[in-house]
Amino acid sequence: MAQTLNIGMIGYGFMARTHSNAYRKVNNFFDVPYQPVLKTVCGLVDAEAKSFAAKWGYESSCTDWRKVVESKDIDIIEICVPNNLHAQIAIAAAKAGKMIICEKPLALNSEQALTMVEAVEKAGVANLVSFNYRRVPAVTLAKQLIDQGRLGKIFHYRANFLQDWTISTEVPQGGMATWRLDVKAAGSGVTGDLLAHCIDTAMWQNGPITKVNAMTETFVKERKSVESGKVEPVGIDDACTFFCRFGNGSLGNFESTRYARGHKALYTFEINGEKASIRWDLHDLHRLQYFDHRDESIVRGWRSVHVTDGDQPYMKHWWVPGLQIGYEHTFVHQAADFLEGLAKGKPASPTFREALETQRVCDAVLASAKSGTWVDVKR
Amino acid sequence: MAQTLNIGMIGYGFMARTHSNAYRKVNNFFDVPYQPVLKTVCGLVDAEAKSFAAKWGYESSCTDWRKVVESKDIDIIEICVPNNLHAQIAIAAAKAGKMIICEKPLALNSEQALTMVEAVEKAGVANLVSFNYRRVPAVTLAKQLIDQGRLGKIFHYRANFLQDWTISTEVPQGGMATWRLDVKAAGSGVTGDLLAHCIDTAMWQNGPITKVNAMTETFVKERKSVESGKVEPVGIDDACTFFCRFGNGSLGNFESTRYARGHKALYTFEINGEKASIRWDLHDLHRLQYFDHRDESIVRGWRSVHVTDGDQPYMKHWWVPGLQIGYEHTFVHQAADFLEGLAKGKPASPTFREALETQRVCDAVLASAKSGTWVDVKR
Amino acid sequence: MAQTLNIGMIGYGFMARTHSNAYRKVNNFFDVPYQPVLKTVCGLVDAEAKSFAAKWGYESSCTDWRKVVESKDIDIIEICVPNNLHAQIAIAAAKAGKMIICEKPLALNSEQALTMVEAVEKAGVANLVSFNYRRVPAVTLAKQLIDQGRLGKIFHYRANFLQDWTISTEVPQGGMATWRLDVKAAGSGVTGDLLAHCIDTAMWQNGPITKVNAMTETFVKERKSVESGKVEPVGIDDACTFFCRFGNGSLGNFESTRYARGHKALYTFEINGEKASIRWDLHDLHRLQYFDHRDESIVRGWRSVHVTDGDQPYMKHWWVPGLQIGYEHTFVHQAADFLEGLAKGKPASPTFREALETQRVCDAVLASAKSGTWVDVKR
Amino acid sequence: MAQTLNIGMIGYGFMARTHSNAYRKVNNFFDVPYQPVLKTVCGLVDAEAKSFAAKWGYESSCTDWRKVVESKDIDIIEICVPNNLHAQIAIAAAKAGKMIICEKPLALNSEQALTMVEAVEKAGVANLVSFNYRRVPAVTLAKQLIDQGRLGKIFHYRANFLQDWTISTEVPQGGMATWRLDVKAAGSGVTGDLLAHCIDTAMWQNGPITKVNAMTETFVKERKSVESGKVEPVGIDDACTFFCRFGNGSLGNFESTRYARGHKALYTFEINGEKASIRWDLHDLHRLQYFDHRDESIVRGWRSVHVTDGDQPYMKHWWVPGLQIGYEHTFVHQAADFLEGLAKGKPASPTFREALETQRVCDAVLASAKSGTWVDVKR
Repeated sequence: MAQTLNIGMIGYGFMARTHSNAYRKVNNFFDVPYQPVLKTVCGLVDAEAKSFAAKWGYESSCTDWRKVVESKDIDIIEICVPNNLHAQIAIAAAKAGKMIICEKPLALNSEQALTMVEAVEKAGVANLVSFNYRRVPAVTLAKQLIDQGRLGKIFHYRANFLQDWTISTEVPQGGMATWRLDVKAAGSGVTGDLLAHCIDTAMWQNGPITKVNAMTETFVKERKSVESGKVEPVGIDDACTFFCRFGNGSLGNFESTRYARGHKALYTFEINGEKASIRWDLHDLHRLQYFDHRDESIVRGWRSVHVTDGDQPYMKHWWVPGLQIGYEHTFVHQAADFLEGLAKGKPASPTFREALETQRVCDAVLASAKSGTWVDVKR
Repeated sequence: MAQTLNIGMIGYGFMARTHSNAYRKVNNFFDVPYQPVLKTVCGLVDAEAKSFAAKWGYESSCTDWRKVVESKDIDIIEICVPNNLHAQIAIAAAKAGKMIICEKPLALNSEQALTMVEAVEKAGVANLVSFNYRRVPAVTLAKQLIDQGRLGKIFHYRANFLQDWTISTEVPQGGMATWRLDVKAAGSGVTGDLLAHCIDTAMWQNGPITKVNAMTETFVKERKSVESGKVEPVGIDDACTFFCRFGNGSLGNFESTRYARGHKALYTFEINGEKASIRWDLHDLHRLQYFDHRDESIVRGWRSVHVTDGDQPYMKHWWVPGLQIGYEHTFVHQAADFLEGLAKGKPASPTFREALETQRVCDAVLASAKSGTWVDVKR
Repeated sequence: MAQTLNIGMIGYGFMARTHSNAYRKVNNFFDVPYQPVLKTVCGLVDAEAKSFAAKWGYESSCTDWRKVVESKDIDIIEICVPNNLHAQIAIAAAKAGKMIICEKPLALNSEQALTMVEAVEKAGVANLVSFNYRRVPAVTLAKQLIDQGRLGKIFHYRANFLQDWTISTEVPQGGMATWRLDVKAAGSGVTGDLLAHCIDTAMWQNGPITKVNAMTETFVKERKSVESGKVEPVGIDDACTFFCRFGNGSLGNFESTRYARGHKALYTFEINGEKASIRWDLHDLHRLQYFDHRDESIVRGWRSVHVTDGDQPYMKHWWVPGLQIGYEHTFVHQAADFLEGLAKGKPASPTFREALETQRVCDAVLASAKSGTWVDVKR
Repeated sequence: MAQTLNIGMIGYGFMARTHSNAYRKVNNFFDVPYQPVLKTVCGLVDAEAKSFAAKWGYESSCTDWRKVVESKDIDIIEICVPNNLHAQIAIAAAKAGKMIICEKPLALNSEQALTMVEAVEKAGVANLVSFNYRRVPAVTLAKQLIDQGRLGKIFHYRANFLQDWTISTEVPQGGMATWRLDVKAAGSGVTGDLLAHCIDTAMWQNGPITKVNAMTETFVKERKSVESGKVEPVGIDDACTFFCRFGNGSLGNFESTRYARGHKALYTFEINGEKASIRWDLHDLHRLQYFDHRDESIVRGWRSVHVTDGDQPYMKHWWVPGLQIGYEHTFVHQAADFLEGLAKGKPASPTFREALETQRVCDAVLASAKSGTWVDVKR
C-alpha cells in the first residue's frame, strides 16, 4: 500500500484545479510509491473554499494559509495564488518543514526568489516550481533528442508565447480573474507570466542564457482596477521581445504578447541545429515537428510526429497510439515525477534553485527593456 | 449532496479504464446531481481484477459477473468486455433492473441487438451505448452547426477510420489484447469496431442510411490463436469500404482498414452542404475545419477552429481558451450527459434502440460485401 | 540548332492556353532537340482565333480544322476541343501522318477510343494523351518511390477529385465555358473529366484495375442549354464514387464530385503499403507527404516533402530549392518528355493505347453505376 | 499592335533567368501596351553569354555592359549582377537615358543608393527595384486587406527569412554561385539579401520603421575564396535578428539566417491587428492565413485562403480556381505592373527612391548590431 501524503492547497483558482486534478489521477495512471490525499484547501472567501473542497473532495477548507502551513497533518504545500504571495507562504512552509510545490514564476523578482531558494535549501525540504510545459510529452521528447546529440551544434533557439485576451480596453486589472494585469500582484506582465515558461524550457533544452537585449510595450496604458474601482495606470508589460546569447554560442529570439489577435495560448519553440531541427506549439501539443538532414534527400521533410506511442515520454501510462492527451496531463506528469523523485531521493526539476535562473533572465530582460542596451544575466 | 450511484464494472481492460476515469472525474468538472461510486469490478482473472480495483479505487472485485448484476448494491452495470458477451450480460442486467452502459458495438449482429433492446425497454431501465466520439467537442459542434441549418442541403458525407496496427502477420488473434481479430469474440473486424463509430456519428448528424454497397477484404488469412496456440483462419474483415444513400438524398462514402500504414487511429469525416462544409479528424480532435461559402470571396477559406472556448460544447467545464483536452474527456462528457439525462428523465443518446440502427447498417454492409450488390438497411 | 516542329493547335480555350504556354517555354528550361513553332491555331469563331493567335504568337489562324490537319506545314496536331470532337480530328490527323497530342479523356467511350488507337497505330505516328498531373514533380516522385519498392506490398489506393463550381442551378450546360456539363459534348460528367485523371495516375502507379463497383448521382436534373436557350435534362454524372480491385490485390476507393463545397480542384491520392505510405493533393501540389515505417519509432511521422530540390523530378530545370512551381509547369514537362521521347524513339506516356485502358475503366464505372453491381474492366 | 521595348540584360545568372522569363510571358497573360523584346544579354564570359542568348532568344550578346548601356537600340536596362556592380551600371544607364530595373538590394549601402536615386531622378527615367515578393498574389492581397482597414490598429509585425544552404563549412565565398557570401560583392549577408525583402514588404504594408535594435552573427568565420583560392575571413552576417518600432506605434520582430536547418527559403510574415491578423509564408506562397475576430465566435478560426480565384490579385490572368502559380510569376506581375505604369505615367513600386528607405533600415540594423544599442533610421 502506497504511503499517503497530505496536500495543503493554498488557492482555489485555475491552478488549484489543475493541481488537484493531478493528485486525483496520478495513482490511476502511474505506479508511484505515494498516495496524495487532498486534505485541505485554503482561500480568501470561506464559501468559495468550501465549495472548492466539496467539488474536489478535500477533507476540509479554511481561509488562513498560516494554519495550513503549520498543520501537522500536511506534508506538501501547494502555492497556487498570485505571485506577490509566493515568497511569504513558501518561506513559512519551508520553516515548517513542508515540501513545497509553487506555481510559476517563482517570485516577483530574483532577489525575492533568492530568499525562497535559501529558505527551502536551509530547511532541506523537497521543492518544485510548476513549469508544467516541460512535461508535455512532445516537449520532453524534444529534450531527449537534444540530449542524444541528434541536432548537432545548435545555431538558433526561437520561442513565442502569443495570446489575445487583453486587447479590449474593458478588461480590468486586479481581482481574481485579472490579477495578472495588476503589477502589484503579478510583478510583471507577459515576461513573468509567459516568457518565464519559454525561458525555463529553453535553458533546460539549450543551456544558460548569458545576456539579453529587450523591448517591452504597454499598449493599454490605464485600466479600471477591480480593487479600487478606479481607472489606474497599467504597470505591466503587454508585450516583450528579446534576443539573446546562449552559453553554447547559439542565438535566441523570444517574443510574447497578449495582443496577437487569433492566438489563444500559442506557445511555440523551434531549435535549429547543424544536423536536425525541432518545432513545437501548444495549440497542437501532442505533435512534434522534426526535420533530420540525414534523411535521404529526395524524401527529406519535416516529420509531423504524433506523440501518442508507448515508447514516447509518459505515453505508455495513458491510452493507445493515436489517442491524444491534453493540457491537464502535464500536471499529472509533474506530480508523478515529483513523487518518484521523492522516493528515489532525486528531486524533480525545476527546483526553486533552478527556477531562480529563469527569474534572473526575466529580471535582465526587464532591465534591458528599460535601458535599451544589452544586459548580462546575473549568476 | 449529490445522490450516489454505485457502479458495477464488468471488464478490466482498456475500456474499463476509460469509463472508470470518467466516473472519477465527472463531479470535479460537471455539476451533475449524482455522485458515481466505483463499487465493484469484475473480470476473469482474480488477481487482475483485484489489481484493477486497487488502482482505480473500487471497493471490491470479483470474477462472476452474474453476482454483480444481481447485487442490490449496484445501480449501473458497465459492460466493457468483448462483443460476444454483451447480450447475455445486458439482458441479465435489464432483468435485474439495473441501468446499463454498454461498449460499442452493441452486439454481434442486429438480431442479437434487438433482443437487448427489447430487454431494456421491457425492464424500463436507463441505457446507453458508448459511441464516445459523438462527445468530442468539435464533433458535437459540427452537429450543432448542421442542426442550425448552416450547411444547407447536404450533398456528401465521407468518413474514414484508418489504422495500421495489424499489418504484421505476427499479431495473433484472440486473448485479452487481440480479441478484436477473433471473429468469435468480435463478430466482425473493422466494420463493427471502427465503421460502427463512423455510422453512428453519420446518422446522428445526417439522418438514416437507407441502402449500402460494400467491399471487404481479409489481407492476412490466418493468424495464431491465443486460445488454441494454433494457426487458424481469420474470420474478420481487415478492411471495409462502402458507399451508400442517406434518406435526405445525400451520398455517403465510408472506409475503414487496419492496413493504412502511417495512421494510428485516424477517424475523419467531411460533410459537404450547399452553403458550408465541415471536416474533422481524431488525430487533432480539438480542431474543427469549417468552410462557409457565405464568407466574402477574397478571404474565403477553410477555418481551423480550435475548439477550446467556453462557448463551444463542453469546454466551459475544462480549462481556458487555447488549452486542449484529449480522448479520455469524451467519456467524462458521456457520463455527465447520462447522469444529467437521468435527472431530467431525458435519456442520453444513443440508447440501445438508437444503436440498433447502427448495427443494422453494419449488417447490411457485411451482407452487401458478400453478395456484391446493393442491400437495403432493415427498419 | 534544334530542329523545328510546327504546331497546329485545334481549339483556343483553356487547354489551348496551357499547351501554347508549354511550347513557348520548353526550350528555355529543357535541353530538348526540337524547337516547337506555334504555327497556326484553329477555332470556330474567326475573330477569337485571330485574337488568340496574336496573344500567343501563332503565325496564322483559321476556322476549319481539316485544313490544319491536311497542311504540309504542320508536324504536330494539338487537340484541345470538347471530347466529342476528339475522334474525328485524331483519326484524320493520323491519316495525314501527323503527330497528335490529345486532351483527356481520349474519347466519349472506349469503343470510340479504340478506333483512335487503331488509327494512330496504323499510321505509326507519335501520340500522347494529356494526363498532365502525372508530371507534377511530387506525383512523379511518388511513382519513383513506388517503383523502387519502398512501399512494399500495396494494400490501399484512395483518390478523390473534389470541386464545387456547379452547385448553383444557374450554371448552364453547353457552350464554350460549360460544355463539360453537356453530355453530348463531354460524354460523361465527373467520371470522364476528373476521375479519368485519378484512374490514369492510379494505374500508372499501382497497375491495372480489374473490376469496379460504382454509384453516380446527378444532383441538378435540368439546366438551361447555352445552345438551345431552353431548360433541358442534364445527362452527366455530377458525382461518382466507386471502389475497385487492382490486379496486385490492393483495394481502391475513388470519388469525384462537383458538389463538395470548399474544394476548388482538390485532387488527392493516398497509397498505403506495408512499409510506407504516400499522400498528395493538388491544392499544394509542390508537397509530397511520405510516411516510412522504417524510421526510428520515436521520431516517426508523416514527412512533408517540399519538392523543389534539384534531385527531385524535373526541378533542376527550374529555380532554386524552396521556390515552388505551379500547375502550368506540368504541361511544360509533358512537352519536354514528348520531345525527348521523339528524339530517342521512345514514346512518352500515356499513349493513346495506354489511355484506352483508362477509358475502359471509366466505361466500367458508368456501367456499374447503372447496373448496381460489380463490372469487370474489359481487356 | 503593342509598342516594342528593347531589353538589355546585364547578367546571365539566376535573376537574369527570372526576368527573361517574365518578358517572354507577360504579353501572353496581361494586356499591356508594350511588347518587350529580348535584345541583348551581357556577361563576363562570352561563351556563357552566347549560350544564354540562344536559350532565351536574345538577338545578341556581349561582354561589355557599357556598350549595352550606350546602345541606341536599348530601352530598358536590367541589372541582374552582384550588388557591388549595381551603382555604376545604374548611374551610367540613367545618364544614357535608359529605363532601369535593378535587382535588390539597390546598393551596398544607403550612401551609394542615394547616388543612384539622384541619378535616375535627375535623368527622369523610369526605375524599379525588383522586390518581387510584393507581387505574390497572397502578399498583394494582404496589402489590400490592410489598406482597407480590416485589421484595425496594428500591434505587431513579425517576419522571418530562414534558409539552411550555408551550414557546411565547405561552401566557398565569391564566384558566380556564392558571391552572396563575399562581403565585397554582396555588401552584407542575410541583412541585404533576405531581410531587405522582409523590410520592403513590411514598410509597404505597415509604414516606416523608425528605430531598430539588432544582433548579428557569423557562424563560419572563414571560407575558401573562389577568386583567390585561399581561405579568407568571412565578412558577411550569417544571421541577423532585430526588433524595431514602426511609425504607427506597432512593434516589429525580424529574423533571418542561413543556418535554420530544414528551411530552404522560408520567408514568413505575420501582422496582428486589433480586429484581424494575417500570416503568410513563401513555402506555400499561394495561401494566405487570415483570422477575423468579427467572425462568429463558435466558428472563428484561421482561414486558409487558397489565393487562386479571379477576384484575387493577378489571378484572373492565369488559370482557373484551385490551380496554383509559383515563384516565377511574381516577376511576370512585376513586368506587367511596370509596363502598365509606364503607359499611365504612374511608376510601379518600389522605385529607387522607395528602395532607398529599405537600404537605410538595413544600414541602421548593421550599425545597431555593431553598437549594441538602438539606432534611429535616417530620413
